[in-house]
Amino acid sequence: MGFREHLQEVCRGVDGAFSCSLMGMDGIEVDRHVQADAGVDVQSMMVEMTGILRSAREAAEAHAAGGLAEFTLGTDRLLAVGRLVSPDYFLVVALGPGGNQGKARYLLRVTAPQVLAEL
Amino acid sequence: MGFREHLQEVCRGVDGAFSCSLMGMDGIEVDRHVQADAGVDVQSMMVEMTGILRSAREAAEAHAAGGLAEFTLGTDRLLAVGRLVSPDYFLVVALGPGGNQGKARYLLRVTAPQVLAEL
Repeated sequence: MGFREHLQEVCRGVDGAFSCSLMGMDGIEVDRHVQADAGVDVQSMMVEMTGILRSAREAAEAHAAGGLAEFTLGTDRLLAVGRLVSPDYFLVVALGPGGNQGKARYLLRVTAPQVLAEL
Repeated sequence: MGFREHLQEVCRGVDGAFSCSLMGMDGIEVDRHVQADAGVDVQSMMVEMTGILRSAREAAEAHAAGGLAEFTLGTDRLLAVGRLVSPDYFLVVALGPGGNQGKARYLLRVTAPQVLAEL
């Protein structure tokens, strides 16, 4: 199964999912599956969020909290649920505010090792 | 009910909660209830995280995703679940990695307006 199929399966499994991306921690997107229009430029936002994740990772490591493993950022219009696949890559699902966050979190947890095996 | 009592009630209601804080977006803590030792300097980490949240808020607003409403940051040793009370303040619960994130998220959602009423 390629990256795209994994991203597609995550989207299919999560109610309210707009898209799922595999991103590099350098802000460059590896692949993306879009299921529905979010009405927000999710892609540009994720690129900017990558810088924020790098800062969060540095803060966590500086305070001996261990490596960053997962994150959620919820705005009035969007919920981004992410999980690190490796120190260099992460998966992120964009949902509507009423989307199933728990299911997204679960599916990313199971999908991350499968994606890692293909990186 | 004062701030401290609200923080205490959130901690009591969440399995695996270490502490709950009311923080200013300027990184200054208003009040905190500690239920158990996290083995991590949660307080210093939160101060640093505040800067990261401000960046996340700016990114969300810049991309028309609306205001930042809630966030989660999970490391190997800690899960921080937060919700904005107002543009200037947020509540954050620190949990162990196996803590009940869903319950924390729910309790912050109900507690935030109560805390706001007292600010």
